[in-house]
Amino acid sequence: MSDKQIPDIIVARLPQYLRSLQRMAREGEKITSSQELGERLGLSAAQIRKDLSQFGEFGKQGTGYFIPYLIDQLQKILHVDHDWDAVVVGAGDIGSALVNYKGFANRGFKVKLVFDNDPAKIGTKIGDFIIQDYAHMVESIRQHDIKIAMIAVPIGSAQEVADRLMEAGVKAILIYAPIIINHPESVRVQYIDPSMHLQRMTFYLG
Amino acid sequence: MSDKQIPDIIVARLPQYLRSLQRMAREGEKITSSQELGERLGLSAAQIRKDLSQFGEFGKQGTGYFIPYLIDQLQKILHVDHDWDAVVVGAGDIGSALVNYKGFANRGFKVKLVFDNDPAKIGTKIGDFIIQDYAHMVESIRQHDIKIAMIAVPIGSAQEVADRLMEAGVKAILIYAPIIINHPESVRVQYIDPSMHLQRMTFYLG
Repeated sequence: MSDKQIPDIIVARLPQYLRSLQRMAREGEKITSSQELGERLGLSAAQIRKDLSQFGEFGKQGTGYFIPYLIDQLQKILHVDHDWDAVVVGAGDIGSALVNYKGFANRGFKVKLVFDNDPAKIGTKIGDFIIQDYAHMVESIRQHDIKIAMIAVPIGSAQEVADRLMEAGVKAILIYAPIIINHPESVRVQYIDPSMHLQRMTFYLG
Repeated sequence: MSDKQIPDIIVARLPQYLRSLQRMAREGEKITSSQELGERLGLSAAQIRKDLSQFGEFGKQGTGYFIPYLIDQLQKILHVDHDWDAVVVGAGDIGSALVNYKGFANRGFKVKLVFDNDPAKIGTKIGDFIIQDYAHMVESIRQHDIKIAMIAVPIGSAQEVADRLMEAGVKAILIYAPIIINHPESVRVQYIDPSMHLQRMTFYLG
């Protein structure tokens, strides 16, 4: 089965399933059902069964899903059964927060390098990380064979940074600047957009 | 028509439509089609027509959508045809970034107040904002009748901050800490979760 045939809207839900299951596991649960998962996520049980069935058989009718097994399978499907090294570009507020972020552990990601082009920052530290010179970013990413990057630079620099990252071989880019960047289909791009999350909520407010 | 009857998965797509349309408008486009919107968003034209038809008739068969009109309508549907005042709790890296964020303008949101409980920060400034004392947050939010909040505090404090916000009458909360909080159904909660965005992309990587 080729991954390409799975609708992206289903792919988008898998990380939600994984997060909920990991939370259940932390709470000591061993077994869950599509009903329970659905209630946690605001989806129908049928939708969850249909989504998961795209990837195989993960539970038995009437007995539900064995949580550790389903977590394991989803991690394999999402390719986060190992940690990906990632770079952070921009050592400002957001970049610093990303370097210190507690939510990458057990989720498949590890910040490896942080870059900035500000001479006052290069060589100084955020946590345990020494801020690297942006001028050496492309060769450094190639050297470490890094495929994942987070862009935390001002709007005006985001496209240029993305271009350099793609040149270096990065295949997945998460962008914090409020801008949409140009990229070939071979590179995946996602945006952190607080306004979009807020609009999803104001719909329900009067 | 009651908003309650619209599936949340459709609501979740409306801010994406609005963002794309606003981008088209900035690029000088006046007319678009469900095909063009679909290509930009990775959705089928049929899905877009079906989603929009939940809210009325926004275009004519064969002539497409008049972009300024559709933007206007979506802003009304999402209740962002006016700006909502919002508070930021936590004046650390993320809080500072949110106060300075350029992506709230024309999207329906305006940071009004910033709170922290650190005596070293209270009274100091981020940009034009004086950091307010968290001890006065509840009364201050009530006074200004603020319904929207962004939580940018460490994991350990997020639930307590959310509880105080809800007590103050906040109805929509965006959370940056990697934690899931407890809240009644009457309050909407969204999470900024970079790991989830990254997992959506690693699915497509080998």
